[in-house]
Amino acid sequence: MQKIGPGHSMTKTLATLILVGSVLTVPHPAIAAPADSAAIRASALKDDVAMDFTEGLTTEVGPRPAGTPQEARARAWAVKTLKALGFSNIRAEAYTMPVWVRGREEARVTAPFPQPLVLAALGNSGSTPEAGIEGNIAYFPTIADLEAAPETAVTGKIVFVDHEMRATQDGSSYGYFGAARRTGPSIASKKGAIAILVRSIGTDHHRIAHTGVQMWAEGATPIPAAAVSVPDAEQIARIVKRDKPVRIHLTLTSKMLADQPSGNVIAEIPGRDPKAGLVVAACHLDSWDQGTGAIDDASGCAIAAASALQVRKGGQPRRTIRLLLAGAEEVGGDGARAYFNAHGTERHALAIESDFGADRIWRIDFKLPAGHEALQERIATAVAPLGIGASKQEAGGGADIAPLVKAGVPVIDLQQDGTRYFDLHHTPDDTLDKVDPEQLRQNVAAWALVLNEVANAQETLGNN
Amino acid sequence: MQKIGPGHSMTKTLATLILVGSVLTVPHPAIAAPADSAAIRASALKDDVAMDFTEGLTTEVGPRPAGTPQEARARAWAVKTLKALGFSNIRAEAYTMPVWVRGREEARVTAPFPQPLVLAALGNSGSTPEAGIEGNIAYFPTIADLEAAPETAVTGKIVFVDHEMRATQDGSSYGYFGAARRTGPSIASKKGAIAILVRSIGTDHHRIAHTGVQMWAEGATPIPAAAVSVPDAEQIARIVKRDKPVRIHLTLTSKMLADQPSGNVIAEIPGRDPKAGLVVAACHLDSWDQGTGAIDDASGCAIAAASALQVRKGGQPRRTIRLLLAGAEEVGGDGARAYFNAHGTERHALAIESDFGADRIWRIDFKLPAGHEALQERIATAVAPLGIGASKQEAGGGADIAPLVKAGVPVIDLQQDGTRYFDLHHTPDDTLDKVDPEQLRQNVAAWALVLNEVANAQETLGNN
Repeated sequence: MQKIGPGHSMTKTLATLILVGSVLTVPHPAIAAPADSAAIRASALKDDVAMDFTEGLTTEVGPRPAGTPQEARARAWAVKTLKALGFSNIRAEAYTMPVWVRGREEARVTAPFPQPLVLAALGNSGSTPEAGIEGNIAYFPTIADLEAAPETAVTGKIVFVDHEMRATQDGSSYGYFGAARRTGPSIASKKGAIAILVRSIGTDHHRIAHTGVQMWAEGATPIPAAAVSVPDAEQIARIVKRDKPVRIHLTLTSKMLADQPSGNVIAEIPGRDPKAGLVVAACHLDSWDQGTGAIDDASGCAIAAASALQVRKGGQPRRTIRLLLAGAEEVGGDGARAYFNAHGTERHALAIESDFGADRIWRIDFKLPAGHEALQERIATAVAPLGIGASKQEAGGGADIAPLVKAGVPVIDLQQDGTRYFDLHHTPDDTLDKVDPEQLRQNVAAWALVLNEVANAQETLGNN
Repeated sequence: MQKIGPGHSMTKTLATLILVGSVLTVPHPAIAAPADSAAIRASALKDDVAMDFTEGLTTEVGPRPAGTPQEARARAWAVKTLKALGFSNIRAEAYTMPVWVRGREEARVTAPFPQPLVLAALGNSGSTPEAGIEGNIAYFPTIADLEAAPETAVTGKIVFVDHEMRATQDGSSYGYFGAARRTGPSIASKKGAIAILVRSIGTDHHRIAHTGVQMWAEGATPIPAAAVSVPDAEQIARIVKRDKPVRIHLTLTSKMLADQPSGNVIAEIPGRDPKAGLVVAACHLDSWDQGTGAIDDASGCAIAAASALQVRKGGQPRRTIRLLLAGAEEVGGDGARAYFNAHGTERHALAIESDFGADRIWRIDFKLPAGHEALQERIATAVAPLGIGASKQEAGGGADIAPLVKAGVPVIDLQQDGTRYFDLHHTPDDTLDKVDPEQLRQNVAAWALVLNEVANAQETLGNN
């Protein structure tokens, strides 16, 4: 997941449709009444499709950064796999985008206590010369302190923002603490810093840095920008406390490539009633480059795919369930925008997205049109036995469905427990072993229940 | 800690004594009866010296590989700090040794599923050319499978040994599983492998590889040898299961330097009775290069120093307590041998060592001469309130006191809980945040009680 920030300046072509599979390749049950909730729960809690999907994508493709050949391999893998699983109308929809490519990244304290640091460049970071740069640290406990600092405290220095993230169950601290990564580089650049390091936006204590995208604000010159691991941030803070000038040598090389191919993958469980609108079940196919993107977001795509198949087991739904495996989520949502440009005028009955790992779902949020209280109640009742409580907070969706939600498409959020999500998020540590098969099955069950209720609802949903 | 293996071939000069401080720099209490156990426990459980020592060494020096300028800085730091703490007869005792220096280390699967791997070269690894090497994997679930394999299954290949370590409270699994690292490279080399990768000898699931020393057996040509992180090992195993040839590109550059300076640091609490022999309290000052060596073994030196000071609070002990902060433990015990060469003929009443982190001590093992059952009982009684049980297992000491123990010096082991030790051991993750201040204090208390009993015992101890 990557927090939705202000729109960025990446150019992109209009989506190109590439029809890969347009007919059902596996027969499915004849039209039937939708399965009852108990049957779906029982079946989905034994699901193996989601784990197999997650294992396959993370093993056979591995890391899949947006706009790279690895992401293209992920699209090919997804098309092949969704075909084998019996989805219909499978296609990759292409677009192009600029791509930032990580290079060498090395840093060391050179004075007063020489020692290496572990870091990861942030997306769109500027590049140092091959030989690196060296400068004194300007230390700021929080992003607010950097904002308040006079230029004289920053100019010519390597800014360090030591903004310590705390874990929360719903991930809401990402908004507050993530500012160090999202806006720190532009603020530091405008005040004349030669580079910026931030404490990783993460809640672990491993020597593993959390990368993530940041966009240069209007008028900010790109400077080298990286996150250090949490133990490295604490080490820098301890060294700074000794009240001697702290010097750092930093090498961050990277490059930008124009017009690289990316794309979304779409697949469907066709509904009986084409006029009833689509239910879009979204996730993203790209990942950051250092892990295999198991929790971010292979498991999200696995949950969407496996739960759609669970619904189909009970018979063809009224509404088409459309999987959207979006490309390029991590770097700004190019895939989501391409999808909306291509499909925004279709009738969307609901959008739902999984992009917060695969730990157990504990809460459901709704944003349904007025007059749909009965549907909302049926859904809440269906998922309650899984330990999921209905909240009064309005659903907001995520980056992959953001343009749809903005356009007024109804949305439901199934909130995963995020307590350990930011231990792993955007790090090399985002690997398959972090996915708990039992919690993944609970996710599939919750999703299947929601998709089943919405796809089969007799109510009218969607505006177009 | 590094497991004691067969002696290796490193040359070393005789220790050179450099007397740094030969007089007491801080006055200490006049001769008094030893403090009772309750008073020592109460005082030591409030100790701050050990945490300050650990914080200082890991912050102001950081990583301190044997035979490097960083290890020399650690000696200077230790001499300065022990002086400030009021120790006597502080000195660095120099020797020289050959030093293996890590270079670039990169690996990636090139087929069938291209993706990067996280690895760390093992000590004394051979070097690849700058451009790296590429070869097919020969997969062995355990070291026994590699041993049993015909040469034809190994020659020209990159061996991978997937020997999965399990955690134990007493660390005893290190002996069994560690064989993949200690003997795997020599076996693979003798069978014609072009390189060897082993699953990290570690119990964590982070993208952090566990390094460690290995010695080339007689007749084994050095080949590139590295450990991959546990998640990477699992990924390789999953890829291998797909039954397609797995190719890996590997770049490991390193170099050997002859005759580099290393040394031990010694400091004393002088005893009242020079004829009663010394109590040696040992640890090692060097660390691996990628972490700051907080649990391995800054905390061990901190425990030894802080507990000796706790004993002195109760008055001058009968026997001298000598701290031995050994150099070069991680790479083969050069410091321990240099100490023994210089001091082996002195009367050593007891040797005790801390080199297994700083989690709570749960067990005490003894190897005292026959007829010292009363002393043993007094010690066991003193530490029992800390939750430490006396075992029937004979104490064995560790690498830093191994030559003394081999020569018959009595030894006591205070066994730390090692359940999480091999999550961190020999990794970049061995940093200060992994030391729990409360458990560290329990260590200081246990050590202070043992040192107090032994240093003040009226019994005769030691042979010389």
